[in-house]
Amino acid sequence: MHNPIDACSGFDVSVVGLGAMGTIMAQVLLKQGKRVAVWNRSPDKAQALVAAGAHLCDSAHAALAASPVTILVLLDNAAVLEVLGSASVPPALAKRTVVNYTTESQEESMALQALVSRAGGHYVKGMIVAYPRNIGHPQSYCIHTGEREAFEQHRALLQVLAGHTLFLPWEETYAFAALLHAHAFAAMVTFYEAVGASQAFGMPAARMARQILDASRFFVADALEEAVRRLEQQDFASDQARLDVHAGAFAQIAQALQAGGAWTPMFDAVCQVVQRAESMGYGDQDIAAATKAFATGAR
Amino acid sequence: MHNPIDACSGFDVSVVGLGAMGTIMAQVLLKQGKRVAVWNRSPDKAQALVAAGAHLCDSAHAALAASPVTILVLLDNAAVLEVLGSASVPPALAKRTVVNYTTESQEESMALQALVSRAGGHYVKGMIVAYPRNIGHPQSYCIHTGEREAFEQHRALLQVLAGHTLFLPWEETYAFAALLHAHAFAAMVTFYEAVGASQAFGMPAARMARQILDASRFFVADALEEAVRRLEQQDFASDQARLDVHAGAFAQIAQALQAGGAWTPMFDAVCQVVQRAESMGYGDQDIAAATKAFATGAR
Repeated sequence: MHNPIDACSGFDVSVVGLGAMGTIMAQVLLKQGKRVAVWNRSPDKAQALVAAGAHLCDSAHAALAASPVTILVLLDNAAVLEVLGSASVPPALAKRTVVNYTTESQEESMALQALVSRAGGHYVKGMIVAYPRNIGHPQSYCIHTGEREAFEQHRALLQVLAGHTLFLPWEETYAFAALLHAHAFAAMVTFYEAVGASQAFGMPAARMARQILDASRFFVADALEEAVRRLEQQDFASDQARLDVHAGAFAQIAQALQAGGAWTPMFDAVCQVVQRAESMGYGDQDIAAATKAFATGAR
Repeated sequence: MHNPIDACSGFDVSVVGLGAMGTIMAQVLLKQGKRVAVWNRSPDKAQALVAAGAHLCDSAHAALAASPVTILVLLDNAAVLEVLGSASVPPALAKRTVVNYTTESQEESMALQALVSRAGGHYVKGMIVAYPRNIGHPQSYCIHTGEREAFEQHRALLQVLAGHTLFLPWEETYAFAALLHAHAFAAMVTFYEAVGASQAFGMPAARMARQILDASRFFVADALEEAVRRLEQQDFASDQARLDVHAGAFAQIAQALQAGGAWTPMFDAVCQVVQRAESMGYGDQDIAAATKAFATGAR
């Protein structure tokens, strides 16, 4: 009798879910010489990976059983529950580690950990701070939580996907990911805003994009390092430029942008922040003191 | 009879205005072996520079006459007019180049060019994209406009102050500077926001600052390079992550931040931008297509 689970074993890692992210993860693992088992609901998505040396399993449970560690990258929590088999405890999970990169809430993810634990398996929650193009990049970051021991056991494998792997407690992970992504996406959108607004001034977006990026790269990188240093040392001495001097300059920039007819909600928010920081009495401190305007939370 | 102008000549460069920025400029020029003449309204600010080898002139006009090129870094346009002598055409300006790094409006700066020109001198308007700590840094930028020939003549000297010197036409310079600074300061303030908001989650700001910066550095740098590439090639194919997928994730991040009680005007603006981009029909394109949400200007 054909046993699909026995037929599919002895692999280093399984990847379940072959969307853009799962596919590139499997590719990167194959390139590093790993024996990779894969499964996807639509098997045609596995063709290129099979051609590259991956083994296509007959079922999700077969993939879970095939390797000591399975990477899940599915659409949402419902898809994860369907794969793991929420109705009964899936025997394929016994002594296996699931690393789940699917996007879901902390509550959902903690419930998954309980489910995997009941089945005798181990659970690691992963969050990828990278677009598919940067999976496998030594400078990419992945944040993990869940069972630390299971994470440490598979850390070397996970580092193939992202050079920097962090492990944080549950209570920090979701908040940190939200803050990190809020910063990163805002940094991206403020760039889109400046480049998009250049068109209001009759300047070609593509050329301005290159020019704005090149001229701001070091300035911004240095200012952020300086902010970290000042926050670490609680040093807000105004030896470079005072917050109120910035506020004055920002008002001039806002005026110039408005004169051009640009729509600039990001920079409007910048002006709001420094105004609040000034009203809180930080005007004679360094611009990094604007961080303190956020300490009291929503108003 | 003592002639202060004759007594003060044969220098490579003069620096007029010894605030934080002018002082460090003079220091950097001295360190590069330049013969530097200086002047400041309060002469005590020149003491350290004189000890380091600078020559203190008796008057602003003496400083203008002392070198082929004078760098002005004053408080505002009124201070510049006082120094140049708006009442009469200052003879000290003949065949001299003034590089003015003072902050003033385009109209004010163009009027200064006319004044210097009437006196037989040359005028370059400069804008420093650097805090004093990064004057002299090979990666710092300076934007210039005004008389191109005078700029080219003194480019090597100006590059001592900032490794990258750009020269742009008048009509581009002020708009570019506004857009560049809008982007750079928004990138800084969004970092302050994320770090400040971490306190709403009971996380220590200093540690979170380091963690957020390290985990976002490559992600953001890569995303901005990718945006430039996509804008140059007009390629908004959604092979990495669609704009509407981002919009969904942003809503979740906003919810998480709100649940923590954080005040996040920057990230609220991010959500506003992607919503507008989605409503304009860019949902199935790459996130960089959000740039197009700004093309139509204010609503």
